[in-house]
Amino acid sequence: MIKRYLLAPGPTEIPPEVLLKMAEPIVHHRNPLFEAVLQEVRENLKYLFGTKNEVLIFASSGTGAMESAVTNVLSPGDKAICVRSGKFGERWANICKAYGVETVNIDIPWGEDLDPEDIEKALKKHPDAKAVYTQATETSTGVKFPIKEISDIVKNYPNTLMVVDGITGVGVFELPQDAWNIDVLVAGSQKALMLPPGLSFCGVSDKAWEFNKKSRLPKFYFNWQKELENLKKNQTNFTPAISLIVGLRESLRMIKQEGLENIYKRIDILARATREGAKALGLKIFPKTPSPAVTAICAPDGIDGQEIYKIMWRKYGVTGAGGQDQLKGKIFRIATLGYADKYDVITALSALEFTLKDLGYKFEMGKGVSAAINVLKDL
Amino acid sequence: MIKRYLLAPGPTEIPPEVLLKMAEPIVHHRNPLFEAVLQEVRENLKYLFGTKNEVLIFASSGTGAMESAVTNVLSPGDKAICVRSGKFGERWANICKAYGVETVNIDIPWGEDLDPEDIEKALKKHPDAKAVYTQATETSTGVKFPIKEISDIVKNYPNTLMVVDGITGVGVFELPQDAWNIDVLVAGSQKALMLPPGLSFCGVSDKAWEFNKKSRLPKFYFNWQKELENLKKNQTNFTPAISLIVGLRESLRMIKQEGLENIYKRIDILARATREGAKALGLKIFPKTPSPAVTAICAPDGIDGQEIYKIMWRKYGVTGAGGQDQLKGKIFRIATLGYADKYDVITALSALEFTLKDLGYKFEMGKGVSAAINVLKDL
Repeated sequence: MIKRYLLAPGPTEIPPEVLLKMAEPIVHHRNPLFEAVLQEVRENLKYLFGTKNEVLIFASSGTGAMESAVTNVLSPGDKAICVRSGKFGERWANICKAYGVETVNIDIPWGEDLDPEDIEKALKKHPDAKAVYTQATETSTGVKFPIKEISDIVKNYPNTLMVVDGITGVGVFELPQDAWNIDVLVAGSQKALMLPPGLSFCGVSDKAWEFNKKSRLPKFYFNWQKELENLKKNQTNFTPAISLIVGLRESLRMIKQEGLENIYKRIDILARATREGAKALGLKIFPKTPSPAVTAICAPDGIDGQEIYKIMWRKYGVTGAGGQDQLKGKIFRIATLGYADKYDVITALSALEFTLKDLGYKFEMGKGVSAAINVLKDL
Repeated sequence: MIKRYLLAPGPTEIPPEVLLKMAEPIVHHRNPLFEAVLQEVRENLKYLFGTKNEVLIFASSGTGAMESAVTNVLSPGDKAICVRSGKFGERWANICKAYGVETVNIDIPWGEDLDPEDIEKALKKHPDAKAVYTQATETSTGVKFPIKEISDIVKNYPNTLMVVDGITGVGVFELPQDAWNIDVLVAGSQKALMLPPGLSFCGVSDKAWEFNKKSRLPKFYFNWQKELENLKKNQTNFTPAISLIVGLRESLRMIKQEGLENIYKRIDILARATREGAKALGLKIFPKTPSPAVTAICAPDGIDGQEIYKIMWRKYGVTGAGGQDQLKGKIFRIATLGYADKYDVITALSALEFTLKDLGYKFEMGKGVSAAINVLKDL
């Protein structure tokens, strides 16, 4: 018998009550029953994003909303600043390139911190840059970026938007869109929202809506204006992913009931416990400024990080993640966002200890779990 | 107590066993368990589409795949022929327009037949047209278009692709992609596939892949080449809509078990019974050439079609559909695609009779149901 535990940085575990809601007979989307669902979802998404504006909903993976955050605010030949410090930062630059947007890339070695001053310098050198594209968490490296500090700089540039991929950030830690002057905030369903992948979201500031009016890049499926018009009538521009939105109502209720402050605190403690556990085993945390969403841990010398991830999954039932691209084999990752509790962290660290033992790594069994328990006792 | 019956032209009813499969704990997509799902899905999609080529899968509504069928084969300034005979034909032209493609529109009054000769004439006048865009069923009017006859014309033009929106067609009636020389065949999850909305599909011919090599319209989220590369490794380019794909495995198994020939026969009889039932009540079928997917019925003189649809839903538990845009109030629609059986047709016609009685329409109660039963007895 093997019980499975999902601690990947997306998809994350889905609460059984959400799964069951989505298993109910489907309702038609042009119908008051579904309009009531959307109405409630709209309100709770505003709470989650910390915005007074509508949060747009797309039937797509997170990348779809990222693409929309380029095509709905820029025009051909525009210039944009992209922070590239991992797989998802590179995605911003690749989307821009696909649509003929000139990119000024701030390249940071994977895992290193982003210095807000680099943004200031880039903006001074390229005052014509129409947007800064970055991540709340660079999921591939586990780094948390200083979004407030960057936003505080960008807000002084009236011709530049601050666009944040918050796919691994919204609902994980403080990221209030309006208070922090984030012009476009992107999220996805399969992370803190505790849903299957298939929905993406865009919170859009008044400033970004102004940019939208002048934007000439082509768009059809991901057209913000049409979505907004429909959303105000509790509809979507095209057939929505009905079952996922029905699940979303449920998961947003759970989020509201726990309260964002409590969620941020819970996830912060879970991540700290994961880091302390790993460190107690003599392992190194990969990033200097780790995100509480996902802990990237360096594989010890002589051991392949992919092996750790695979044995944890195959033999010990815990699905974390390996490293991506240049980090493949060098790190493995354990996530603590969404529907994760203290026992999940202990389970993951136990599986890690079993795995490291199998791989011949020298350490005192139980030390990781003990260190974590000491952090978790306050939760 | 009100039991609900869904006979809308999308979403359609989802079999309980599919709903329950999707309610199982989610699996990670970069994982052999999910790769096995995709491998099976790939094979069965080829069977469903009647093609030897890969069928691409997107996390989006059907419109996303339609957009991809423009952006992946055309270049800026290209010319395309669009058949406009309803809401969805107009969508093809709108997508082309959004991407700077010049359209030659063949405008047919809503509900009328498409004469394949009009395609031949348009192609002779515009031999530089790179594609013909049309529908298998124009869902808004219930018309079935003569796809084979059109394809037989387009296949003689080596520089023109035959692109079919088969969202309300694939899995409903004969539409074999390879045998009929359909270059791009689009489908969606919430119709014959008996799933929630949120997945779209593109079958792509060798000829269309050749066009793809030269296509210069911008694309990122809906990039065919990247999807194909990933699909061959049982992966998707971006995080897939995992739960829907798990459901898809199940619904494709059901489709294969019943067999496409039997499905086509079943749906044809269900639609015929619906039409005979409506006619026995003195009602007129809106299109001359009705699709078996959905029956568009004219509201009798002096009665609002929207009222019929609303009372059927609110008071009698049967969700059909009203008319869209210019047909609002003039028609109502009852669908018979996907997970529909003979008792669903009888239920829908009973609800229609109750509703018409409420609205003061004069007819002999039971005549519609009786006429349908006589058609259905062979099923």
